[in-house]
Amino acid sequence: MNRTHNNGQLRMSHVGDNVELIGWVAKKRNLGALVFIDLRDRYGVTQIIFDESFEERLKEVKNEYILQVKGSVIERSSKNPKMATGDIEVQAKDFQIINTAKLTPMIVADETDALEETRMQYRYLDLRRPMMQENLMTRHKITRSIREYLDNLDFIDIETPYLNRSTPEGARDFLVPSRVHKGEFYALPQSPQLFKQLLMVSGFEKYYQIARCFRDEDLRADRQIEFTQVDVEMSFLSTDRILEIGEGMIAKVMHDVKGIDIELPLRRLTWHEAMEKYGIDKPDTRFGLELVNLNHIVADVDFAVFKNALEAHGHVKGINVVAQAQEFSRKKIDNLTEIAKTYKAKGLAWLKVSEAGVQGPIAKFFTEEQMNTLLTAMNAKENDLLLFVGDPKYEVVCDSLAAIRNYLGKELKLYDPSTFDFLWVVDFPMFEYDDETQRYYAKHHPFTRPKDEDIDKLETDPENCLADAYDIVLNGFELGGGSQRIYEQNLQERAFKALGFTQEQIDSQFGWFVEGLQYGTPPHGGFALGLDRVAMLLCGCDSLRDVIAFPKNTSATCPMSKAPTPVAKAQLDELGIGVNKNESTESK
Amino acid sequence: MNRTHNNGQLRMSHVGDNVELIGWVAKKRNLGALVFIDLRDRYGVTQIIFDESFEERLKEVKNEYILQVKGSVIERSSKNPKMATGDIEVQAKDFQIINTAKLTPMIVADETDALEETRMQYRYLDLRRPMMQENLMTRHKITRSIREYLDNLDFIDIETPYLNRSTPEGARDFLVPSRVHKGEFYALPQSPQLFKQLLMVSGFEKYYQIARCFRDEDLRADRQIEFTQVDVEMSFLSTDRILEIGEGMIAKVMHDVKGIDIELPLRRLTWHEAMEKYGIDKPDTRFGLELVNLNHIVADVDFAVFKNALEAHGHVKGINVVAQAQEFSRKKIDNLTEIAKTYKAKGLAWLKVSEAGVQGPIAKFFTEEQMNTLLTAMNAKENDLLLFVGDPKYEVVCDSLAAIRNYLGKELKLYDPSTFDFLWVVDFPMFEYDDETQRYYAKHHPFTRPKDEDIDKLETDPENCLADAYDIVLNGFELGGGSQRIYEQNLQERAFKALGFTQEQIDSQFGWFVEGLQYGTPPHGGFALGLDRVAMLLCGCDSLRDVIAFPKNTSATCPMSKAPTPVAKAQLDELGIGVNKNESTESK
Repeated sequence: MNRTHNNGQLRMSHVGDNVELIGWVAKKRNLGALVFIDLRDRYGVTQIIFDESFEERLKEVKNEYILQVKGSVIERSSKNPKMATGDIEVQAKDFQIINTAKLTPMIVADETDALEETRMQYRYLDLRRPMMQENLMTRHKITRSIREYLDNLDFIDIETPYLNRSTPEGARDFLVPSRVHKGEFYALPQSPQLFKQLLMVSGFEKYYQIARCFRDEDLRADRQIEFTQVDVEMSFLSTDRILEIGEGMIAKVMHDVKGIDIELPLRRLTWHEAMEKYGIDKPDTRFGLELVNLNHIVADVDFAVFKNALEAHGHVKGINVVAQAQEFSRKKIDNLTEIAKTYKAKGLAWLKVSEAGVQGPIAKFFTEEQMNTLLTAMNAKENDLLLFVGDPKYEVVCDSLAAIRNYLGKELKLYDPSTFDFLWVVDFPMFEYDDETQRYYAKHHPFTRPKDEDIDKLETDPENCLADAYDIVLNGFELGGGSQRIYEQNLQERAFKALGFTQEQIDSQFGWFVEGLQYGTPPHGGFALGLDRVAMLLCGCDSLRDVIAFPKNTSATCPMSKAPTPVAKAQLDELGIGVNKNESTESK
Repeated sequence: MNRTHNNGQLRMSHVGDNVELIGWVAKKRNLGALVFIDLRDRYGVTQIIFDESFEERLKEVKNEYILQVKGSVIERSSKNPKMATGDIEVQAKDFQIINTAKLTPMIVADETDALEETRMQYRYLDLRRPMMQENLMTRHKITRSIREYLDNLDFIDIETPYLNRSTPEGARDFLVPSRVHKGEFYALPQSPQLFKQLLMVSGFEKYYQIARCFRDEDLRADRQIEFTQVDVEMSFLSTDRILEIGEGMIAKVMHDVKGIDIELPLRRLTWHEAMEKYGIDKPDTRFGLELVNLNHIVADVDFAVFKNALEAHGHVKGINVVAQAQEFSRKKIDNLTEIAKTYKAKGLAWLKVSEAGVQGPIAKFFTEEQMNTLLTAMNAKENDLLLFVGDPKYEVVCDSLAAIRNYLGKELKLYDPSTFDFLWVVDFPMFEYDDETQRYYAKHHPFTRPKDEDIDKLETDPENCLADAYDIVLNGFELGGGSQRIYEQNLQERAFKALGFTQEQIDSQFGWFVEGLQYGTPPHGGFALGLDRVAMLLCGCDSLRDVIAFPKNTSATCPMSKAPTPVAKAQLDELGIGVNKNESTESK
């Protein structure tokens, strides 16, 4: 089996050459007694033209057959500028069928009408589509670029175990029954967090791994039970240096994969700034439409929603949807209100600025002076639409306006979808207060280090204690994040205490790890990037499933292999486990 | 926190420079009021000298404390040629304790008297030992070199799922209970075999992955339940080209990692030649001591063991242990006999060639002419020791003599342990006959392709049907192997039939995969390398555990985290499984 060229290679300069090609029949069409075949391989498509002498033999050739073709390159009479090889075609002199193919249950082309479930069931055909080939090649380019970058910076790729110890609490572990130790279980890692910290304790100083992680979380539309993480940790480096290394990695990937040179350093927003301006810690910064804090502006306005919010130490924020007052009918505004309500806002207040003055249901609550102050604060001009949410809870105001902002950004085409706008969000709060359980939880993991200047706030003012933690954000998606870690024994104990851990909980959950921190732990920190998400955004896809070779569907099954499946009783017996008969299996 | 240099960096050219270093206290010793500290980091060790002014402050500094030291580089009065930085030392001007350390339960140095269980329990300390750091860095160099090689040859790194479908039969799967589909299970992959073949069906043409694999096999001294495989597959290429790509990869690794340029192409032995010459399909070819087939030579000798073996269509083979007759006492020969018996030989026959003639218990069975023929066949000279095994079973003869050969090779120092002798073993048999079940089994997996010229032997002569399969062997270890795969529907059916699979078995075990082969499968083949083993041999280690960051011990537990562990009943309930109470847990 031989080929002289691949199917993406031939150009006008090859005209007259004798060539041999191999590929799949992507398309076959007859023109009288002539037959045209588009021959496809990983590298592209070349048009083959067969004269009438082949007509009979070609009758058996169907789509997705694999052919080897001998012929000579000729110039096309009607060139196809959309194809890399569109200037030429190959006049066949001989051909051979390498393998046949059954009629495929889906069209193997970028334009396919197959349902996603069909695409996943016949994934090997779906992956033949040039778009999917391109996606996985882009993903490979990303990992290659990342590895080159980290290798050249002296990071060591170290593999950590996939059969670990289960940690109760946190996201759900996938368990793996042990046969040798019946009744005991390994757990698949949710991330290599503890191991990468122990590698710092081990003195490796610079570690990375592109690691699979597993979370048995409740399923959402676009979540996978296994995902891939670029995991990085380093010792003795300042947060500035860690961010520099992180953004350098992103810049190299953008250069290598997209040919785009992004400007460094990336800008940084504090978590507080991000919440104030965008209402969200992963803002899409490709467009403005920023939130305006109106707490002081509307403090005296006699509108019950605002008043109640502010009296309960809550918040009022607004957005100026510039030059859209006339575009937004009542119905469109109702639509925005629905979005706000999804995020628990009780409603959405609005005003329209027009030549005739300011209109809207809440206009009457403003004195002229109050209105002028408002318009100035929001930089409002004629035909601007102003939207407001007030609520006792900061997160309700932020969540609802952030959702409206993202919706409007897309709807009003406020940005070029092909742009990539990266930023760091830094200085996250250490703790999150949970109303239900009335206690503070670590916003990150309990080994996240407070900012040096906030260490004493662990006990005195946990709410305002900031973490030396950071996220990297792209176009409204969190790509990843990290932090400095606590490396001092006594600080770790204070952090555990502030989080309400009992000694017993610490021992049972983290004892083996905390033990390790006592033997000379270097200052260390790092980050992790969600590779699937990076690949999705760089490929311009809407779904993680389009950048994973063999993904699971939204009910965590593989439509191709049908995993998971029942297994033989003998297998379970050997593991010393049984299936509870009273539990019913959800249908797939 | 700052350092101007690392601890492996300073040389005579730096004398007079002011430097800042960071590292762990590897050793501290007093010389009068002077204190010497060896400061260790990932890059090496530098000696720091503290004058008497530091004596008091240094009292609290103990081994494995982390120090930051400011000082100036001075020439050592007594240089240490064994240390890269042995020409200099740093005269401390100031220091700071970055972190303290508890007394370590083991000595953190290459020379340690810690038991392996202790080393594994405190793995983070064990990994600080320069030897272990070196091992993991070598491992990283190997993967980096492999990736560079394959990336540059246009291979795409594609991740395949870790949560798969269980395949009954074969090695035991690790199962993962599904929470969403209660009573059903995922399985961790034993290898990405089926997925990599489907990627060829998908048209990627050149795939690789450095993938974790999982096998719940019975434990042996040096086996891990998870291991790492360099997995490679390609389409449209001849076996010669696949081997060329494989050995090119090995050559690059040897060049990049060991600085050794091995000669290519590697020599190839057929499986039959390997068995004949070495009695084993993974021969250590660093030394001779080859087996001699004596079936025809001793056909008429009136010695019952030989006679019985040959009459039962068995075999007689010998080894000439050159110039060792006088060295091998009766006791030493008994020792060899024990080895032979371990491999089921009924005994070990022997002769010693001396000036006075040939001596030994079996000498009397030979006529003079028979003895002369034997000595000629074995190229025997004075003081040679000749060893023989005869048995009705070929594998008994081979196994026992191969074990004796490997033993003698090491014992008699017949090779330089620092040499690396690679070779391919090719043309493996397709089938292995199992006496117990009286049927043929695939020696590889059932998708292995027979050699073109042997296809018809599938039905007519399965015993002599050879596979287009190959192993790569180094110094007596199988590093990996692979094959061409069956890509034609009808041939696959013939192979399944020859292996005694029923249609039902095919459907239930491989149905989803075999379905995929029908839509235009290209000719394809590939190989897989055991990365852990490659790393072990290149590091010159005796155990896989020395090249894995966090290995399991021989009872498949992690002495550090204590995984596996019992889990909360709530976790099991959520998965719909229970532990069988009548099963006892083996003690760890």
